[in-house]
Amino acid sequence: MTFEDKLKNIRAITYDVDGVVTDGNLLAMPDGDLLRVFDAKDSFAIRMVSMAGLAVGVITGATSGSIKLRMLTCGVPEEDIYLHSRRKITDFEDFCRRHSLKAEEVLFLGDDIPDVPVLKAAGIGVAPCDACEEAKAASDFISPFGGGKGCFRHTVEMVLKSQGKWRLDTELYSKRF
Amino acid sequence: MTFEDKLKNIRAITYDVDGVVTDGNLLAMPDGDLLRVFDAKDSFAIRMVSMAGLAVGVITGATSGSIKLRMLTCGVPEEDIYLHSRRKITDFEDFCRRHSLKAEEVLFLGDDIPDVPVLKAAGIGVAPCDACEEAKAASDFISPFGGGKGCFRHTVEMVLKSQGKWRLDTELYSKRF
Amino acid sequence: MTFEDKLKNIRAITYDVDGVVTDGNLLAMPDGDLLRVFDAKDSFAIRMVSMAGLAVGVITGATSGSIKLRMLTCGVPEEDIYLHSRRKITDFEDFCRRHSLKAEEVLFLGDDIPDVPVLKAAGIGVAPCDACEEAKAASDFISPFGGGKGCFRHTVEMVLKSQGKWRLDTELYSKRF
Amino acid sequence: MTFEDKLKNIRAITYDVDGVVTDGNLLAMPDGDLLRVFDAKDSFAIRMVSMAGLAVGVITGATSGSIKLRMLTCGVPEEDIYLHSRRKITDFEDFCRRHSLKAEEVLFLGDDIPDVPVLKAAGIGVAPCDACEEAKAASDFISPFGGGKGCFRHTVEMVLKSQGKWRLDTELYSKRF
Repeated sequence: MTFEDKLKNIRAITYDVDGVVTDGNLLAMPDGDLLRVFDAKDSFAIRMVSMAGLAVGVITGATSGSIKLRMLTCGVPEEDIYLHSRRKITDFEDFCRRHSLKAEEVLFLGDDIPDVPVLKAAGIGVAPCDACEEAKAASDFISPFGGGKGCFRHTVEMVLKSQGKWRLDTELYSKRF
Repeated sequence: MTFEDKLKNIRAITYDVDGVVTDGNLLAMPDGDLLRVFDAKDSFAIRMVSMAGLAVGVITGATSGSIKLRMLTCGVPEEDIYLHSRRKITDFEDFCRRHSLKAEEVLFLGDDIPDVPVLKAAGIGVAPCDACEEAKAASDFISPFGGGKGCFRHTVEMVLKSQGKWRLDTELYSKRF
Repeated sequence: MTFEDKLKNIRAITYDVDGVVTDGNLLAMPDGDLLRVFDAKDSFAIRMVSMAGLAVGVITGATSGSIKLRMLTCGVPEEDIYLHSRRKITDFEDFCRRHSLKAEEVLFLGDDIPDVPVLKAAGIGVAPCDACEEAKAASDFISPFGGGKGCFRHTVEMVLKSQGKWRLDTELYSKRF
Repeated sequence: MTFEDKLKNIRAITYDVDGVVTDGNLLAMPDGDLLRVFDAKDSFAIRMVSMAGLAVGVITGATSGSIKLRMLTCGVPEEDIYLHSRRKITDFEDFCRRHSLKAEEVLFLGDDIPDVPVLKAAGIGVAPCDACEEAKAASDFISPFGGGKGCFRHTVEMVLKSQGKWRLDTELYSKRF
């Protein structure tokens, strides 16, 4: 199967948080909580995925409630946000099962060692260009963009364009947001 | 009409927030609010526009109260700050109507898909160099600078210099701030 | 007088805040306050200036109490921190008068239009490499480093080394901090 | 002894905070506290060091409680976190004594003048590529990466790989985190 065929086959986009939809930065607060910086264009891309009818899932070892709130606002359903994931492959398999999807129909973006098993299992594994070497080696595609610096948006654009679902009709977004 | 003639014709500067007067970064707080980083030189530029007698307007899909407070402090009138804009072209038209301006007398800076209709309708549409392709394609001018990285200041400087209103008299600013 | 002679003549280092000891970024808080990011190496440099026996002064249009606290911690005396400065040249002259210094004995770092009169009046005016054109044109020296990105530290190093006061004796710092 | 031999000999990794596991940025809060941004990949590296059986120690002049909480979460024992260090060499010697290690068995990463004595005393002194000149001159190895930008992770990877302890078994991490 060519990469283009794989893209057409994707029914869900799943991703790690730190180093993927952020640049890996963690603002350490006085109470021990960690805050992240997300990108506005990525946030819009998450919504475009949902509106295109694909499923979206988050699988992260992080635990901060601020991640959950951010992802909920972007339209990710609560049950598809896996925080505190200790064994990401288990959560990935749970996501596939609940959505009745085969692993080959699911894309996953990850950047560090704990993501490697999922990058290998997913239909398409994508690593940001600043991912660790092990994550890059396990991926089908290395994004020309870094984590939090366009990697997510660019990946979404590739998938939706391959399926003819990259919609520019702003009327559509005005109604659904 | 040449680009220089268009610049001379501008009576108002309007802009999106995320990715235009910020680099698109969103600091996700524990309560779900999103905080932004603004640039000191852009803030000064907003004041220069007002003091030069041009109108200023903000049209953003964002909802955070911190944006409103920041823009008010920079001298943007409350009624010219459109937060939570779902259909930006409607708010742009409202801004023009209230100020008795034709669209061709208003410059708009935008960087993402929801900005495209306004970039097309405005007298001058400006996209930061890191805007999405669709925003760049809809613009009259692509700034050599990125969002939050000089794009706004440089655009203001172009407009005010073309009109002989780029004032360096610091006495003037000391009185009005 | 050569630039090296001017450096030897300096008895005080004064500076603007935004775009000089920060990169110009302003984190806009929900209550309207603006937070800044300072650099650890700059903070150490401020202390080195004080310990070398030179005066230090801050002249900024900003108003946030967090700036004052930061500068106090770095050892700048409260009376030498001019916040909410609307006419910087007046505050610069007040600083010189209180310290019985001539303007030519005082270095000033500034990056934007309101800094221009002080950059011209000071013995040495320094602009970060990312200062606005007007500030650069008014300066004696354009730093190879940007605001918040080494400009302040490098300038301090130039001054103290020219005077033989760049001290590396960490015992000294351990006692005085 | 070759550098490779020195790497094999290392039994503990110690480091300064600002400019080493951060890029030196300090977010100045209204109450005078300073917040830092840490990197997700560095945080994972700290855990890998502990799981490989090496000791970890933090020696910083900083005082913020948020640093302590961050390091505790990454698995650094409380007694090995030296905050408010005024004479770093003393704290380094205390760390060695408590762990019954010779200085030559301990690696230290530092970036500024107060780190120089420890960079010289440690078995391997490492400076980020954006460290001050004095710190670089005192180091055995200058990282190709900057503070908070890969320097720490890359150093850990060098040490653990030289000792055959760079473990990619994600099952292992799932059990121990």
